[in-house]
Amino acid sequence: MTPEKKLLESDGRAAEVYRTAAQIILQKGYDATSVSDIATALGITKAGLYHYISGKTQLLFDIMRFGLDELDREVVRPALAIADPEARLRFMIVTHATIVTRGLGAVTILVDEARALTPAQHRKVTRWKRAYLDLLRGTLEDIKAAGKLREVDPTVAAFSILGMVNWMSRWYQPEGRMSVGEIAQQIADMAMHGLLRLPGRTSRRSLRAI
Amino acid sequence: MTPEKKLLESDGRAAEVYRTAAQIILQKGYDATSVSDIATALGITKAGLYHYISGKTQLLFDIMRFGLDELDREVVRPALAIADPEARLRFMIVTHATIVTRGLGAVTILVDEARALTPAQHRKVTRWKRAYLDLLRGTLEDIKAAGKLREVDPTVAAFSILGMVNWMSRWYQPEGRMSVGEIAQQIADMAMHGLLRLPGRTSRRSLRAI
Repeated sequence: MTPEKKLLESDGRAAEVYRTAAQIILQKGYDATSVSDIATALGITKAGLYHYISGKTQLLFDIMRFGLDELDREVVRPALAIADPEARLRFMIVTHATIVTRGLGAVTILVDEARALTPAQHRKVTRWKRAYLDLLRGTLEDIKAAGKLREVDPTVAAFSILGMVNWMSRWYQPEGRMSVGEIAQQIADMAMHGLLRLPGRTSRRSLRAI
Repeated sequence: MTPEKKLLESDGRAAEVYRTAAQIILQKGYDATSVSDIATALGITKAGLYHYISGKTQLLFDIMRFGLDELDREVVRPALAIADPEARLRFMIVTHATIVTRGLGAVTILVDEARALTPAQHRKVTRWKRAYLDLLRGTLEDIKAAGKLREVDPTVAAFSILGMVNWMSRWYQPEGRMSVGEIAQQIADMAMHGLLRLPGRTSRRSLRAI
Protein backbone atom coordinates (compact mmCIF):
# COMPACT_ATOMS: atom_id res chain seq x y z
CA MET A 1 0.00 0.00 0.00
CA THR A 2 1.45 3.38 -0.93
CA PRO A 3 1.65 5.97 1.87
CA GLU A 4 -0.77 8.10 -0.14
CA LYS A 5 -3.40 5.40 -0.29
CA LYS A 6 -3.01 4.71 3.42
CA LEU A 7 -3.53 8.39 4.12
CA LEU A 8 -6.68 8.51 2.02
CA GLU A 9 -8.14 5.47 3.76
CA SER A 10 -7.31 6.78 7.17
CA ASP A 11 -8.80 10.10 6.15
CA GLY A 12 -12.03 8.37 5.15
CA ARG A 13 -12.37 6.68 8.52
CA ALA A 14 -11.32 9.82 10.38
CA ALA A 15 -13.98 11.75 8.45
CA GLU A 16 -16.62 9.30 9.71
CA VAL A 17 -15.34 9.70 13.27
CA TYR A 18 -15.42 13.52 13.16
CA ARG A 19 -18.81 13.74 11.44
CA THR A 20 -20.42 11.30 13.87
CA ALA A 21 -18.84 13.04 16.86
CA ALA A 22 -20.10 16.39 15.56
CA GLN A 23 -23.65 15.06 15.22
CA ILE A 24 -23.67 13.73 18.78
CA ILE A 25 -22.19 16.93 20.22
CA LEU A 26 -24.87 18.95 18.41
CA GLN A 27 -27.64 16.71 19.71
CA LYS A 28 -26.50 16.33 23.31
CA GLY A 29 -24.31 19.38 23.83
CA TYR A 30 -20.53 19.28 24.26
CA ASP A 31 -20.55 19.01 28.05
CA ALA A 32 -23.03 16.11 28.06
CA THR A 33 -21.23 14.12 25.35
CA SER A 34 -18.80 11.41 26.49
CA VAL A 35 -16.14 9.58 24.50
CA SER A 36 -18.19 6.42 25.14
CA ASP A 37 -21.25 7.97 23.43
CA ILE A 38 -19.20 8.55 20.30
CA ALA A 39 -17.60 5.09 20.36
CA THR A 40 -21.05 3.49 20.74
CA ALA A 41 -22.46 5.49 17.82
CA LEU A 42 -19.54 4.40 15.64
CA GLY A 43 -19.80 0.78 16.79
CA ILE A 44 -16.19 0.68 17.96
CA THR A 45 -14.49 0.37 21.34
CA LYS A 46 -13.22 3.39 23.26
CA ALA A 47 -9.69 2.09 22.64
CA GLY A 48 -10.45 1.96 18.92
CA LEU A 49 -11.78 5.53 19.02
CA TYR A 50 -8.59 6.73 20.73
CA HIS A 51 -6.78 5.66 17.59
CA TYR A 52 -8.42 8.68 15.91
CA ILE A 53 -8.86 11.19 18.71
CA SER A 54 -6.61 12.13 21.61
CA GLY A 55 -9.40 12.82 24.09
CA LYS A 56 -12.44 14.94 24.65
CA THR A 57 -10.53 18.14 25.39
CA GLN A 58 -8.97 18.06 21.94
CA LEU A 59 -12.06 16.71 20.15
CA LEU A 60 -13.95 19.92 19.38
CA PHE A 61 -10.78 21.49 18.02
CA ASP A 62 -10.05 18.37 15.93
CA ILE A 63 -13.57 18.48 14.44
CA MET A 64 -13.14 22.15 13.52
CA ARG A 65 -9.71 21.48 12.03
CA PHE A 66 -11.18 18.62 10.02
CA GLY A 67 -13.93 20.88 8.63
CA LEU A 68 -11.56 23.73 7.84
CA ASP A 69 -9.02 21.33 6.27
CA GLU A 70 -11.78 20.07 4.00
CA LEU A 71 -12.55 23.66 2.99
CA ASP A 72 -8.87 24.35 2.36
CA ARG A 73 -8.32 21.22 0.29
CA GLU A 74 -11.50 21.32 -1.80
CA VAL A 75 -12.16 25.04 -2.13
CA VAL A 76 -9.18 27.25 -1.32
CA ARG A 77 -6.39 25.41 -3.15
CA PRO A 78 -8.27 24.82 -6.42
CA ALA A 79 -9.66 28.39 -6.22
CA LEU A 80 -6.16 29.85 -6.04
CA ALA A 81 -5.48 28.34 -9.46
CA ILE A 82 -8.41 30.22 -11.05
CA ALA A 83 -7.16 33.53 -12.46
CA ASP A 84 -10.51 35.09 -13.41
CA PRO A 85 -12.08 36.48 -10.22
CA GLU A 86 -15.69 35.99 -11.40
CA ALA A 87 -15.01 32.32 -12.20
CA ARG A 88 -13.14 31.98 -8.88
CA LEU A 89 -16.07 33.45 -6.95
CA ARG A 90 -18.59 31.13 -8.56
CA PHE A 91 -16.32 28.11 -8.00
CA MET A 92 -15.89 29.00 -4.31
CA ILE A 93 -19.63 29.42 -3.70
CA VAL A 94 -20.69 26.26 -5.54
CA THR A 95 -17.96 24.05 -4.10
CA HIS A 96 -18.33 25.34 -0.54
CA ALA A 97 -22.10 24.86 -0.78
CA THR A 98 -21.65 21.26 -1.86
CA ILE A 99 -19.60 20.37 1.24
CA VAL A 100 -21.43 22.14 4.08
CA THR A 101 -24.20 19.55 4.33
CA ARG A 102 -21.94 16.51 4.70
CA GLY A 103 -22.58 14.57 7.90
CA LEU A 104 -25.96 16.32 8.26
CA GLY A 105 -24.17 19.68 8.43
CA ALA A 106 -22.97 19.07 11.98
CA VAL A 107 -19.28 19.82 11.31
CA THR A 108 -20.20 23.13 9.63
CA ILE A 109 -22.42 24.15 12.53
CA LEU A 110 -19.79 23.22 15.14
CA VAL A 111 -17.07 25.20 13.36
CA ASP A 112 -18.96 28.31 14.41
CA GLU A 113 -19.25 27.33 18.05
CA ALA A 114 -16.09 28.75 19.56
CA ARG A 115 -16.83 27.55 23.07
CA ALA A 116 -14.77 24.87 24.84
CA LEU A 117 -11.61 25.77 22.93
CA THR A 118 -8.42 26.79 24.69
CA PRO A 119 -7.24 30.32 23.85
CA ALA A 120 -4.49 28.87 21.62
CA GLN A 121 -6.96 26.64 19.76
CA HIS A 122 -9.36 29.56 19.41
CA ARG A 123 -6.61 31.70 17.86
CA LYS A 124 -5.80 28.95 15.34
CA VAL A 125 -9.44 28.41 14.33
CA THR A 126 -9.92 32.17 14.01
CA ARG A 127 -6.80 32.43 11.81
CA TRP A 128 -7.99 29.63 9.49
CA LYS A 129 -11.46 31.15 9.17
CA ARG A 130 -9.91 34.55 8.55
CA ALA A 131 -7.79 33.11 5.71
CA TYR A 132 -10.96 31.82 4.03
CA LEU A 133 -12.74 35.12 4.48
CA ASP A 134 -9.71 36.96 3.09
CA LEU A 135 -9.67 34.86 -0.08
CA LEU A 136 -13.40 35.45 -0.58
CA ARG A 137 -13.12 39.17 0.11
CA GLY A 138 -9.95 39.45 -2.02
CA THR A 139 -11.85 37.85 -4.91
CA LEU A 140 -14.61 40.45 -4.51
CA GLU A 141 -11.97 43.19 -4.40
CA ASP A 142 -10.47 41.86 -7.65
CA ILE A 143 -13.94 42.07 -9.19
CA LYS A 144 -14.33 45.58 -7.82
CA ALA A 145 -10.96 46.62 -9.28
CA ALA A 146 -12.24 45.44 -12.65
CA GLY A 147 -15.24 47.77 -12.23
CA LYS A 148 -17.68 44.88 -12.06
CA LEU A 149 -18.83 44.99 -8.45
CA ARG A 150 -22.06 46.80 -7.55
CA GLU A 151 -21.93 49.44 -4.84
CA VAL A 152 -21.49 46.98 -2.01
CA ASP A 153 -18.81 46.70 0.62
CA PRO A 154 -16.65 43.61 -0.11
CA THR A 155 -16.63 42.65 3.58
CA VAL A 156 -20.43 42.77 3.84
CA ALA A 157 -20.67 40.82 0.58
CA ALA A 158 -18.15 38.18 1.73
CA PHE A 159 -19.93 37.58 5.04
CA SER A 160 -23.32 37.48 3.28
CA ILE A 161 -22.06 34.78 0.94
CA LEU A 162 -20.71 32.84 3.93
CA GLY A 163 -24.10 33.21 5.62
CA MET A 164 -26.08 31.93 2.64
CA VAL A 165 -23.75 28.97 2.16
CA ASN A 166 -23.25 28.02 5.81
CA TRP A 167 -26.99 28.30 6.50
CA MET A 168 -27.57 25.38 4.12
CA SER A 169 -26.10 23.13 6.83
CA ARG A 170 -29.12 24.02 8.96
CA TRP A 171 -31.97 23.61 6.52
CA TYR A 172 -30.94 21.16 3.79
CA GLN A 173 -32.74 17.83 3.95
CA PRO A 174 -31.16 14.87 2.15
CA GLU A 175 -34.60 13.51 1.28
CA GLY A 176 -35.76 16.86 -0.12
CA ARG A 177 -36.84 17.52 -3.71
CA MET A 178 -33.61 19.29 -4.78
CA SER A 179 -30.05 17.99 -4.80
CA VAL A 180 -27.18 19.72 -3.04
CA GLY A 181 -25.72 20.55 -6.46
CA GLU A 182 -28.93 22.21 -7.68
CA ILE A 183 -29.22 24.30 -4.53
CA ALA A 184 -25.53 25.25 -4.73
CA GLN A 185 -26.03 26.55 -8.29
CA GLN A 186 -29.06 28.60 -7.24
CA ILE A 187 -27.17 30.16 -4.33
CA ALA A 188 -24.27 30.98 -6.67
CA ASP A 189 -26.68 32.54 -9.22
CA MET A 190 -28.30 34.61 -6.49
CA ALA A 191 -24.91 35.82 -5.23
CA MET A 192 -23.54 36.58 -8.71
CA HIS A 193 -26.64 38.54 -9.75
CA GLY A 194 -26.76 40.24 -6.37
CA LEU A 195 -23.15 41.41 -6.45
CA LEU A 196 -21.99 41.85 -10.00
CA ARG A 197 -22.67 44.56 -12.52
CA LEU A 198 -23.45 42.51 -15.54
CA PRO A 199 -23.57 45.04 -18.37
CA GLY A 200 -22.40 42.42 -20.83
CA ARG A 201 -24.79 39.86 -19.47
CA THR A 202 -27.91 41.04 -21.25
CA SER A 203 -26.16 41.60 -24.55
CA ARG A 204 -24.20 38.36 -24.34
CA ARG A 205 -27.35 36.42 -23.59
CA SER A 206 -29.21 38.33 -26.25
CA LEU A 207 -26.55 37.44 -28.75
CA ARG A 208 -26.68 33.81 -27.73
CA ALA A 209 -30.45 33.72 -27.74
CA ILE A 210 -30.95 35.48 -31.06
CA MET B 1 -49.45 54.20 35.20
CA THR B 2 -51.50 52.62 32.44
CA PRO B 3 -51.25 48.85 32.13
CA GLU B 4 -49.75 49.38 28.66
CA LYS B 5 -46.93 51.55 29.94
CA LYS B 6 -46.21 49.08 32.71
CA LEU B 7 -45.97 46.34 30.13
CA LEU B 8 -43.53 48.34 27.99
CA GLU B 9 -41.30 49.08 30.97
CA SER B 10 -41.31 45.53 32.12
CA ASP B 11 -40.55 44.50 28.55
CA GLY B 12 -37.47 46.74 28.51
CA ARG B 13 -36.10 45.16 31.67
CA ALA B 14 -37.04 41.68 30.51
CA ALA B 15 -35.20 42.36 27.24
CA GLU B 16 -32.04 43.16 29.20
CA VAL B 17 -32.46 39.96 31.22
CA TYR B 18 -32.89 37.76 28.13
CA ARG B 19 -30.07 39.39 26.15
CA THR B 20 -27.63 39.13 29.05
CA ALA B 21 -28.63 35.53 29.75
CA ALA B 22 -28.16 34.69 26.06
CA GLN B 23 -24.65 36.19 26.06
CA ILE B 24 -23.61 34.18 29.10
CA ILE B 25 -25.07 30.95 27.75
CA LEU B 26 -23.19 31.49 24.48
CA GLN B 27 -19.92 32.15 26.31
CA LYS B 28 -20.11 29.39 28.91
CA GLY B 29 -22.44 26.88 27.33
CA TYR B 30 -25.96 26.15 28.57
CA ASP B 31 -24.98 23.33 30.91
CA ALA B 32 -22.24 25.35 32.61
CA THR B 33 -24.42 28.46 33.08
CA SER B 34 -26.13 28.91 36.46
CA VAL B 35 -28.95 31.26 37.43
CA SER B 36 -26.42 32.91 39.80
CA ASP B 37 -24.08 33.70 36.86
CA ILE B 38 -26.88 35.58 35.13
CA ALA B 39 -27.98 37.41 38.29
CA THR B 40 -24.37 38.49 38.93
CA ALA B 41 -23.96 39.77 35.37
CA LEU B 42 -27.18 41.78 35.71
CA GLY B 43 -26.19 43.08 39.15
CA ILE B 44 -29.37 41.78 40.79
CA THR B 45 -30.15 39.09 43.34
CA LYS B 46 -31.26 35.60 42.35
CA ALA B 47 -34.63 36.43 43.89
CA GLY B 48 -34.79 39.54 41.72
CA LEU B 49 -33.95 37.48 38.64
CA TYR B 50 -36.74 35.02 39.43
CA HIS B 51 -39.12 37.92 38.95
CA TYR B 52 -38.33 37.64 35.21
CA ILE B 53 -37.55 33.98 34.69
CA SER B 54 -39.11 30.85 36.10
CA GLY B 55 -35.91 28.81 36.28
CA LYS B 56 -33.11 27.44 34.18
CA THR B 57 -35.19 24.72 32.53
CA GLN B 58 -37.52 27.30 31.04
CA LEU B 59 -34.81 29.91 30.36
CA LEU B 60 -33.58 28.83 26.93
CA PHE B 61 -37.16 28.56 25.69
CA ASP B 62 -37.98 31.99 27.16
CA ILE B 63 -34.97 33.53 25.37
CA MET B 64 -36.06 32.00 22.06
CA ARG B 65 -39.64 33.16 22.59
CA PHE B 66 -38.36 36.65 23.36
CA GLY B 67 -36.32 36.72 20.12
CA LEU B 68 -39.14 35.34 18.00
CA ASP B 69 -41.67 37.72 19.63
CA GLU B 70 -39.42 40.62 18.66
CA LEU B 71 -39.37 39.34 15.08
CA ASP B 72 -43.14 38.97 15.08
CA ARG B 73 -43.80 42.43 16.51
CA GLU B 74 -41.26 44.40 14.49
CA VAL B 75 -41.14 42.51 11.21
CA VAL B 76 -44.10 40.17 10.66
CA ARG B 77 -47.00 42.39 11.76
CA PRO B 78 -45.90 45.56 9.92
CA ALA B 79 -44.95 43.44 6.87
CA LEU B 80 -48.47 42.00 6.68
CA ALA B 81 -49.75 45.54 6.10
CA ILE B 82 -47.55 46.02 3.00
CA ALA B 83 -49.48 44.99 -0.09
CA ASP B 84 -46.70 45.23 -2.68
CA PRO B 85 -44.58 42.06 -2.38
CA GLU B 86 -41.33 43.72 -3.49
CA ALA B 87 -41.71 46.47 -0.90
CA ARG B 88 -42.70 43.82 1.68
CA LEU B 89 -39.57 41.76 0.91
CA ARG B 90 -37.24 44.75 1.24
CA PHE B 91 -38.93 45.82 4.48
CA MET B 92 -38.57 42.32 5.95
CA ILE B 93 -34.87 42.05 5.06
CA VAL B 94 -33.90 45.52 6.27
CA THR B 95 -35.91 45.36 9.49
CA HIS B 96 -34.87 41.82 10.37
CA ALA B 97 -31.22 42.76 9.70
CA THR B 98 -31.49 45.73 12.07
CA ILE B 99 -32.61 43.55 14.99
CA VAL B 100 -30.38 40.46 14.74
CA THR B 101 -27.32 42.16 16.26
CA ARG B 102 -29.05 43.43 19.41
CA GLY B 103 -27.38 42.16 22.59
CA LEU B 104 -24.27 41.20 20.58
CA GLY B 105 -26.36 38.85 18.47
CA ALA B 106 -26.60 36.26 21.25
CA VAL B 107 -30.41 35.89 21.16
CA THR B 108 -30.33 35.35 17.37
CA ILE B 109 -27.62 32.71 17.66
CA LEU B 110 -29.40 30.88 20.51
CA VAL B 111 -32.69 30.77 18.60
CA ASP B 112 -30.99 28.29 16.28
CA GLU B 113 -29.72 26.04 19.03
CA ALA B 114 -32.54 23.64 19.51
CA ARG B 115 -30.86 21.67 22.27
CA ALA B 116 -32.08 21.64 25.87
CA LEU B 117 -35.69 22.20 24.85
CA THR B 118 -38.47 19.80 25.81
CA PRO B 119 -40.23 18.21 22.83
CA ALA B 120 -43.24 20.51 23.39
CA GLN B 121 -41.04 23.61 23.51
CA HIS B 122 -39.18 22.45 20.43
CA ARG B 123 -42.44 22.05 18.53
CA LYS B 124 -43.50 25.57 19.47
CA VAL B 125 -40.19 27.15 18.45
CA THR B 126 -40.27 25.20 15.18
CA ARG B 127 -43.84 26.40 14.49
CA TRP B 128 -42.89 30.07 15.10
CA LYS B 129 -39.83 29.84 12.89
CA ARG B 130 -41.88 28.10 10.23
CA ALA B 131 -44.43 30.93 10.28
CA TYR B 132 -41.65 33.44 9.59
CA LEU B 133 -40.23 31.32 6.79
CA ASP B 134 -43.71 30.94 5.30
CA LEU B 135 -44.24 34.72 5.19
CA LEU B 136 -40.85 35.22 3.54
CA ARG B 137 -41.43 32.40 1.05
CA GLY B 138 -45.00 33.53 0.40
CA THR B 139 -43.70 37.01 -0.42
CA LEU B 140 -41.25 35.49 -2.91
CA GLU B 141 -44.09 33.43 -4.39
CA ASP B 142 -46.16 36.61 -4.80
CA ILE B 143 -43.21 38.16 -6.67
CA LYS B 144 -42.94 35.02 -8.77
CA ALA B 145 -46.65 35.14 -9.59
CA ALA B 146 -46.09 38.70 -10.86
CA GLY B 147 -43.38 37.36 -13.20
CA LYS B 148 -40.66 39.24 -11.38
CA LEU B 149 -38.68 36.45 -9.73
CA ARG B 150 -35.60 35.05 -11.45
CA GLU B 151 -35.38 31.32 -12.03
CA VAL B 152 -34.83 30.47 -8.37
CA ASP B 153 -36.74 28.21 -6.03
CA PRO B 154 -38.63 30.37 -3.47
CA THR B 155 -37.64 28.01 -0.64
CA VAL B 156 -33.93 28.20 -1.49
CA ALA B 157 -34.24 31.98 -1.83
CA ALA B 158 -36.07 32.34 1.51
CA PHE B 159 -33.48 30.28 3.42
CA SER B 160 -30.64 32.15 1.70
CA ILE B 161 -32.07 35.48 2.83
CA LEU B 162 -32.41 34.09 6.37
CA GLY B 163 -28.79 32.94 6.20
CA MET B 164 -27.44 36.32 5.07
CA VAL B 165 -29.44 38.18 7.71
CA ASN B 166 -28.92 35.80 10.62
CA TRP B 167 -25.19 35.55 9.88
CA MET B 168 -24.86 39.25 10.73
CA SER B 169 -25.33 38.29 14.38
CA ARG B 170 -22.01 36.42 14.16
CA TRP B 171 -19.81 38.96 12.40
CA TYR B 172 -21.16 42.46 13.05
CA GLN B 173 -19.00 44.54 15.40
CA PRO B 174 -20.59 47.56 17.08
CA GLU B 175 -17.31 49.49 16.86
CA GLY B 176 -16.92 48.72 13.14
CA ARG B 177 -16.87 51.29 10.35
CA MET B 178 -20.44 50.67 9.12
CA SER B 179 -23.73 51.05 10.98
CA VAL B 180 -26.28 48.25 11.29
CA GLY B 181 -28.59 50.29 9.07
CA GLU B 182 -26.01 50.65 6.29
CA ILE B 183 -25.22 46.93 6.35
CA ALA B 184 -28.93 46.10 6.37
CA GLN B 185 -29.47 48.19 3.23
CA GLN B 186 -26.56 46.50 1.45
CA ILE B 187 -27.86 43.05 2.31
CA ALA B 188 -31.31 44.05 1.05
CA ASP B 189 -29.80 45.42 -2.20
CA MET B 190 -27.84 42.22 -2.69
CA ALA B 191 -30.94 40.09 -2.14
CA MET B 192 -33.19 42.23 -4.35
CA HIS B 193 -30.69 42.26 -7.24
CA GLY B 194 -29.97 38.59 -6.71
CA LEU B 195 -33.61 37.53 -6.82
CA LEU B 196 -35.62 39.98 -8.87
CA ARG B 197 -35.85 40.53 -12.55
CA LEU B 198 -35.34 44.25 -12.57
CA PRO B 199 -36.81 46.59 -15.16
CA GLY B 200 -34.49 47.81 -17.87
CA ARG B 201 -32.86 44.44 -18.18
CA THR B 202 -33.94 41.90 -20.74
CA SER B 203 -34.97 38.66 -19.14
CA ARG B 204 -34.27 35.29 -20.58
CA ARG B 205 -37.99 34.67 -20.82
CA SER B 206 -38.58 37.75 -22.95
CA LEU B 207 -35.58 36.86 -25.08
CA ARG B 208 -37.08 33.45 -25.71
CA ALA B 209 -40.23 35.19 -26.79
CA ILE B 210 -38.34 37.25 -29.39
